[in-house]
Amino acid sequence: MSGKGLTRSPGSDARGVAAEELRRHNLALIIDRLHFAGPMSRSDLVTRTGLNRSTIGALVNELSELSLVEVGPATTASGPGRPSPIVRPRPEGAVVLAVELAVDSIAVATVGLGGHVFNHVRVERPRKHLLPVDAVAVIADLARPLLGSLPANHKFAGVGVAVVGVVRRSDGYLHIAPNLGWRDVPMGALLSDALSTGHPVSVANEADLGAIAEHRRGTYPNARNLIYVSGEVGIGAGIIADGVPLHGAAGYAAEAGHTLINPEGRPCRCGGTGCWETEAGEAALLRHAGTCGDTTGLAAIAELSRAAAAGEDSALCAFTQLGHWLGLGIGNLINLFNPDVVVLGGLYHRFYEYLELSVVKGAKSQALLPAWDVATITKAGLGTDAPLVGAGELALSALIADPARAESLREYHRARPLRESGAPVPRSQGA
Amino acid sequence: MSGKGLTRSPGSDARGVAAEELRRHNLALIIDRLHFAGPMSRSDLVTRTGLNRSTIGALVNELSELSLVEVGPATTASGPGRPSPIVRPRPEGAVVLAVELAVDSIAVATVGLGGHVFNHVRVERPRKHLLPVDAVAVIADLARPLLGSLPANHKFAGVGVAVVGVVRRSDGYLHIAPNLGWRDVPMGALLSDALSTGHPVSVANEADLGAIAEHRRGTYPNARNLIYVSGEVGIGAGIIADGVPLHGAAGYAAEAGHTLINPEGRPCRCGGTGCWETEAGEAALLRHAGTCGDTTGLAAIAELSRAAAAGEDSALCAFTQLGHWLGLGIGNLINLFNPDVVVLGGLYHRFYEYLELSVVKGAKSQALLPAWDVATITKAGLGTDAPLVGAGELALSALIADPARAESLREYHRARPLRESGAPVPRSQGA
Repeated sequence: MSGKGLTRSPGSDARGVAAEELRRHNLALIIDRLHFAGPMSRSDLVTRTGLNRSTIGALVNELSELSLVEVGPATTASGPGRPSPIVRPRPEGAVVLAVELAVDSIAVATVGLGGHVFNHVRVERPRKHLLPVDAVAVIADLARPLLGSLPANHKFAGVGVAVVGVVRRSDGYLHIAPNLGWRDVPMGALLSDALSTGHPVSVANEADLGAIAEHRRGTYPNARNLIYVSGEVGIGAGIIADGVPLHGAAGYAAEAGHTLINPEGRPCRCGGTGCWETEAGEAALLRHAGTCGDTTGLAAIAELSRAAAAGEDSALCAFTQLGHWLGLGIGNLINLFNPDVVVLGGLYHRFYEYLELSVVKGAKSQALLPAWDVATITKAGLGTDAPLVGAGELALSALIADPARAESLREYHRARPLRESGAPVPRSQGA
Repeated sequence: MSGKGLTRSPGSDARGVAAEELRRHNLALIIDRLHFAGPMSRSDLVTRTGLNRSTIGALVNELSELSLVEVGPATTASGPGRPSPIVRPRPEGAVVLAVELAVDSIAVATVGLGGHVFNHVRVERPRKHLLPVDAVAVIADLARPLLGSLPANHKFAGVGVAVVGVVRRSDGYLHIAPNLGWRDVPMGALLSDALSTGHPVSVANEADLGAIAEHRRGTYPNARNLIYVSGEVGIGAGIIADGVPLHGAAGYAAEAGHTLINPEGRPCRCGGTGCWETEAGEAALLRHAGTCGDTTGLAAIAELSRAAAAGEDSALCAFTQLGHWLGLGIGNLINLFNPDVVVLGGLYHRFYEYLELSVVKGAKSQALLPAWDVATITKAGLGTDAPLVGAGELALSALIADPARAESLREYHRARPLRESGAPVPRSQGA
């Protein structure tokens, strides 16, 4: 019943494949390989795609004309025959702005095709109530110099945003972000207006994007079934099922932090009781450490970190208690998703050494043996940058899926630069 | 980041598409449409697949030569131009044996392409410890007359089996079936030997197959995200995510019955404590009804059914209590999968009228609002036959994915008939 790519049983809305669609599919396949695996020889492309030599040659030429790749001389001969030229993705061929809006920090980066990071800035911010318009202004202020410093010949391809909340994929509408205290914010529209780059702004849940980043650029790039679980104020989760991000009907899937795990437990910010994040989120950690009621999360976490590093029993015990609940919930996810790998990010990444034993013990106690036997639990290969990396992938994804779009890309300074105010900006500015 | 069919971003093991693969894909697409949607005109096939008229004509001819479809005169003219011929799937072009091994019953059916059921038999069986070899013998005894009565010109295409347990997809190895009391049973091999049809026997989890059946042949055929939850002795669940069955790394996904929902709860047959099925399975229902400790489940359930129909408070209250926990767990699944529809089968289907209010209330209390707003909870359109229908689809799936396989299909009586014993059977027997 299973199967991959074209051999899977067509879904109820699958359509016939015409020759033009076939060519576009193959073009996308090659740019996808180069984007994620990096430069490789034309021979390697033949081997990795199963397409023949002349087809690869024609497709590489087309990508080269689109300025997305460059072909250079072979470095060394491998195997018989003459050395095969090396094909490289050109970062300047498609540059995007990646944004992460987390509870304790805001980060932006300019990222090119192939994953090259041109510039990157993250600002911590005090955890107080921030209005959406203010957050958007901070993002625009951070983005301006990064975008302004892009050389004139770099092609601008769009904006991707990771945000801690439940987001509608179609238009970036943020339904609810309990840990920011926000509800019903048209985040996509606000950012599109503030950034005014002439490109769509794609917004998605932070953990969903963390999962995509860990899946494509993390430690286990061949894992087809991956669960990303990130410790924040709450718990973020993103899921890759059979190589594909799990979105659900409207993009609201993977809200694992709000699955009931303890009906006798505590009220949750979502309005429910005993959700997983009430037992394994940041507040639970501080409660176990005896600092409950603290509102300055960052300082309390820093103190707990110091105490654990000094080997203080109460701190280590707090992590063990958190790990127990974290592990039980991971066991649930293993039973539901039968993953190859569970990747821990955020707080869980930062304190993995203190959590590992109790997480594994808790997860093993809940998981059924066949699924447990094939699952690996590990910390995020990309560290705390996973959501930001994922935001870059989100912004590049439309181009990767249809590289012919590169034809319509323009240099950032010839597109619409960021407005300082509502006034239009002359096109020649800054070039 | 999303996308369907060929436009999705290629996974890390996707390969280039050659022209021959394209033709096979389109052939599969057409037989898939006819198999699930039933007879339609050549014009409808053009509209529904997006392929052009001459391509459809050639592909339909090829399917006709493979004996999988027949083309008949148009019944009525629709729209301008001459009436378009009607293409019908031929059930006798590919017949499979579908088997369901449940806790309380064993069912077999002969099913043809297009979903036509030739024959169907289900036997209830007392819930006592049954050895795997005995169950296999019962299945073979039930299958023999059904297969023997197939007309000589029917082509036999394989066997699909639904079983209550954790099954390895690759070879039908049953790791564990707590509610049958089985562990480590090579079910695929045993059945292949006993049925000896010369065809592979595909085995899968009962609820996974129920989900496939409800997705393709249930009340919501256009739902791309569907969760099937079936009340048995335990809880079976199967999940369709973005149109594709969720298998996980090795086929063990969707074990929702063994997710922790009440850490202060009761021991579960899996060895854990407080799993969902300890609160919402059959034993919980009987416990709520005050008949705990009863081992003859069927009789107790029958009595409870009578009492509920008579309006007895204690019985209705037991269903309400069960529905509360069932709903909470469904809320968890809604948060994780953002489904279009949650379909209730088995016991939950049978007693839906008593459960509905409390299930909806419980699910709503746990689900986040955006996901709740798009989800529908309903009872199984196929009733208790969903897993058996799914087993038929499992057996047909290889042929649907690659219709050219029909060339090698043989009439059942000219293949290898069921052996009464270990002795070889003459090929001419019964023809």
